[in-house]
Amino acid sequence: MIRLNETATLWWDAEAGGICYIDQTILPEHFKIVTCRSIGQLATAIRRLEIRGAPALGVAGAYGIALAARICEKIDLKDFFADVHRDADILISTRPTAINLEWGIARVLSKIEHLEDKESIRRIALDEANAVAREDTACCHSIGEHGASLLPDICTVLTHCNAGALACSSWGTALGVIRSAVMSGKKIRVIACETRPLLQGSRLTAWELIRDGIDVTVITDSSAAHLMRSGSISAVIVGADRITRDAVFNKIGTYMLAVCARFHNIPFYVAAPLSTFDTQKEERDVVIEERCREEVTTMGCRVFVPDGAAVKNYSFDATPLDLVTAIITDKGVLHPPVTIDSLLSLKSTK
Amino acid sequence: MIRLNETATLWWDAEAGGICYIDQTILPEHFKIVTCRSIGQLATAIRRLEIRGAPALGVAGAYGIALAARICEKIDLKDFFADVHRDADILISTRPTAINLEWGIARVLSKIEHLEDKESIRRIALDEANAVAREDTACCHSIGEHGASLLPDICTVLTHCNAGALACSSWGTALGVIRSAVMSGKKIRVIACETRPLLQGSRLTAWELIRDGIDVTVITDSSAAHLMRSGSISAVIVGADRITRDAVFNKIGTYMLAVCARFHNIPFYVAAPLSTFDTQKEERDVVIEERCREEVTTMGCRVFVPDGAAVKNYSFDATPLDLVTAIITDKGVLHPPVTIDSLLSLKSTK
Repeated sequence: MIRLNETATLWWDAEAGGICYIDQTILPEHFKIVTCRSIGQLATAIRRLEIRGAPALGVAGAYGIALAARICEKIDLKDFFADVHRDADILISTRPTAINLEWGIARVLSKIEHLEDKESIRRIALDEANAVAREDTACCHSIGEHGASLLPDICTVLTHCNAGALACSSWGTALGVIRSAVMSGKKIRVIACETRPLLQGSRLTAWELIRDGIDVTVITDSSAAHLMRSGSISAVIVGADRITRDAVFNKIGTYMLAVCARFHNIPFYVAAPLSTFDTQKEERDVVIEERCREEVTTMGCRVFVPDGAAVKNYSFDATPLDLVTAIITDKGVLHPPVTIDSLLSLKSTK
Repeated sequence: MIRLNETATLWWDAEAGGICYIDQTILPEHFKIVTCRSIGQLATAIRRLEIRGAPALGVAGAYGIALAARICEKIDLKDFFADVHRDADILISTRPTAINLEWGIARVLSKIEHLEDKESIRRIALDEANAVAREDTACCHSIGEHGASLLPDICTVLTHCNAGALACSSWGTALGVIRSAVMSGKKIRVIACETRPLLQGSRLTAWELIRDGIDVTVITDSSAAHLMRSGSISAVIVGADRITRDAVFNKIGTYMLAVCARFHNIPFYVAAPLSTFDTQKEERDVVIEERCREEVTTMGCRVFVPDGAAVKNYSFDATPLDLVTAIITDKGVLHPPVTIDSLLSLKSTK
């Protein structure tokens, strides 16, 4: 029944010499695997959200450095690293809010920067990127197991955007919790907020869950509070793009769900690996990405906003930690009150 | 600058012998005036939301009875009224939640039911329907004046769906308040929630306000809480489809805005004529219309929800009155606490 367990959504193809990924912009209408052989192509894929989701961006960043090292033809070592660092900067600049992209890039860079032999650099970069991908999958399973115990045996869980296998290397964070709960025999029904403007909830989350035979119902984002009031929602679980000392950054609409969950006394869980934590920073230090108006104004061939109207298209929002019931990490569950110290102590057990 | 002041959006065309309306499903891409000459055509137009908005539905219902009387060819008076009543039932059945449709129909029926001469019936039905339309416009202006005084001289107002001229005969309820405030010299900036699934906010509200030269910014529905938290929103104003003793029924997403406004201590205003009140009923007595899945799953030529996923497409939600700061009516402003008695006393001044 659980199929995505066995399918990676982002991987290195040794034969093709590049990064393979499922193009997330055209699901569920088209399932297409793309092979990416240049940094420009990878940066465009990330910017266009063909690859998206915080943990998947970490893996993509790691493979990006492996790719940069592989394709760089510079003879001189200084020139070689200059090229790789320029490529790293290109990749980092694609998305400012999710921390994992930067984290995956930094992790691979740190493994190669002291090396002097280019073949070793290439091999070790790829080994480390593969390790990032493997560990991401392991983290998701661990998050899933920690989180599954929080859910009642029979319940309806509301989720937002896509924090599933597609957003990671496989399994998922928020959807990983749901998958693990289903695997353990719990009867879980999922409400997926469609997640405007790019509909990752209806397009990706619904697609993933159907493939796994998990009951899923799509709603418009603003229906969530109505369902909460009707008593239909047992818990909310979302992923995260960055968790600072004071706030969870995640897809726009997450904060609205947190406020409404608090108002209705519904548990609000965030599921994320420790690589998503950024305990050096506070909310005010983080830039919230704003994307182009066309994501909101157009859909297929239709235009829905008249030309003279302004559009604000925030990609993320910040949810203060005091609205979060618990953060489900790969190292365990952080129960309230979620303090800086509890975050740091969990991280130190890594 | 204010143009919609002079433009009706729904009227009787004596020459064409039918009801004229602006088709609201194809704005802002196409501006098309349709003439409706049969009850079947009118019912379809209402069901397809070519005509929508609670006060506009009241006017459409009233003109619907005028049209039914005009086109009925039955000689026998009993047969004639049987046909008119059947047509009234067809119209009422199109939308279960908004009260104004039923109200407009009942008002014209009550004026003709004792009459025996068909020419008088036809004339009086049309006179009464014209009176409904005229009074609706007057109500909107009155709501506008009462509400404008509640807004600061310089402020940003968030609104949902379309409670504008298009939703009424002209001027609007929530947008009527904004128009009246602008006319009185206040500097109002509007944030329009796009209002999924049918995007009445981005398509209709933005279109109306731009025509009037009023500053409008479109956001996705789930961005509202983020903007409230950032301190950008001075007040929320929405319309209503029905106000029972205990709740305001309005476009899905209204309740979410009310919860978030309360959480952020932002005034939450409802603007509606007295014809929207249904003080005989409580929330539990009202059916919330659910519409077809295609409104959520498809857009233009694209399909966003995979076949196996369920969809819940609620058209409306209920906001309990204790979340409403004030209801702006044509007879004055109901300040908190909004009780049954205060509603009834206001209605008695009619």
